[in-house]
Amino acid sequence: MGTQAETGRPERRLTRKGQETRRRIVAAAAQLMYERGATEATLEDVRAAAGVSGSQIYHYFADKQALLLAVIEHQTEAVLDMQQSLFADLDTMEGLRRWRDALVEYQLRLQCRGGCPIGSLGSEVAETNPEARLTAATGFLRWEAAIRSGLQAMHDRGDLDGDPEDLALATLAALQGGLLLTQLQRQVRPLEVALDAMLAHIESHTRRP
Amino acid sequence: MGTQAETGRPERRLTRKGQETRRRIVAAAAQLMYERGATEATLEDVRAAAGVSGSQIYHYFADKQALLLAVIEHQTEAVLDMQQSLFADLDTMEGLRRWRDALVEYQLRLQCRGGCPIGSLGSEVAETNPEARLTAATGFLRWEAAIRSGLQAMHDRGDLDGDPEDLALATLAALQGGLLLTQLQRQVRPLEVALDAMLAHIESHTRRP
Repeated sequence: MGTQAETGRPERRLTRKGQETRRRIVAAAAQLMYERGATEATLEDVRAAAGVSGSQIYHYFADKQALLLAVIEHQTEAVLDMQQSLFADLDTMEGLRRWRDALVEYQLRLQCRGGCPIGSLGSEVAETNPEARLTAATGFLRWEAAIRSGLQAMHDRGDLDGDPEDLALATLAALQGGLLLTQLQRQVRPLEVALDAMLAHIESHTRRP
Repeated sequence: MGTQAETGRPERRLTRKGQETRRRIVAAAAQLMYERGATEATLEDVRAAAGVSGSQIYHYFADKQALLLAVIEHQTEAVLDMQQSLFADLDTMEGLRRWRDALVEYQLRLQCRGGCPIGSLGSEVAETNPEARLTAATGFLRWEAAIRSGLQAMHDRGDLDGDPEDLALATLAALQGGLLLTQLQRQVRPLEVALDAMLAHIESHTRRP
């Protein structure tokens, strides 16, 4: 992942209190960047929201770039953590449907606001910040791997005759496009329809008993 | 669409020279916002890039918001115009495949940079600018309608037994998610795989002779 190396202050070398402060800064920055975008959220805003001093921020992050990379990694962890209990069951159609339902339900709870935290940041930085673009791309590769793992297990059992790599990537793309349209329309239907089409496509590749 | 009304200076009431100047400003703003994001592109940057005076910009656009809305509409027109000749054939699998190939080819020519001009702007403004969010959502509805029109024709002929509305929306979502991942990874594979999965799904709903 590399952020800790880039800031020069690896989290693991911090005291427990230092780790806590660092996490509070990242969480505050993540929230502000989620609400306003990475460009609009200033270090001063982050400082105030986290309730720390300017010198504390610079103790943990060399500059805004280091903080931005930490935020993208934080959002990746948050997004993956939230789905962790569902990933284990992505090797059955029932598990895939429960995952789909949980993603839809979560957007409904958010009133379809915010989109994907990784996708939003990734889109914002893609053409101006190669390092941040790669960090977002890495986050998506981890997400894709979690989906692929279920489909690969299905395939290895002989229950899926499609390519797990392609199906996982296409599923993540459907999810991302569905989230973007859901965010813009403030309606959950694009996400539902996009995921349903992908799950139907996956199901068409299953060998039913 | 509404932008002209909001700026208070409808394009149709401008002289030919005025229309040309207005278009030059919008094109310059679109290019800058595409490269840097809407937030980072200032009116002063736009003024310099378009080679006009500050008072000329304010003659055509009340403020940056009016210019931003005009840019989102401009990008919508550009995106739809580019695909116009392909939309007419989206009522056959061959036509859908040619459209898919053209989208992939275009991303390869761009070296997978830039993503979707509507999607990028939409994502950037979605949580901070409701009017711009709606303008981007309207752009996507027009795109979706163009896809749906082909699928509806296929359906009306009896060659498609799926729901053209759902299939069109899912196809646009797959395209958007594919474009985002392609932009972040600088590889065309996500777009290819996402569209191929959707076309296979559509084909599974066709009634073959």
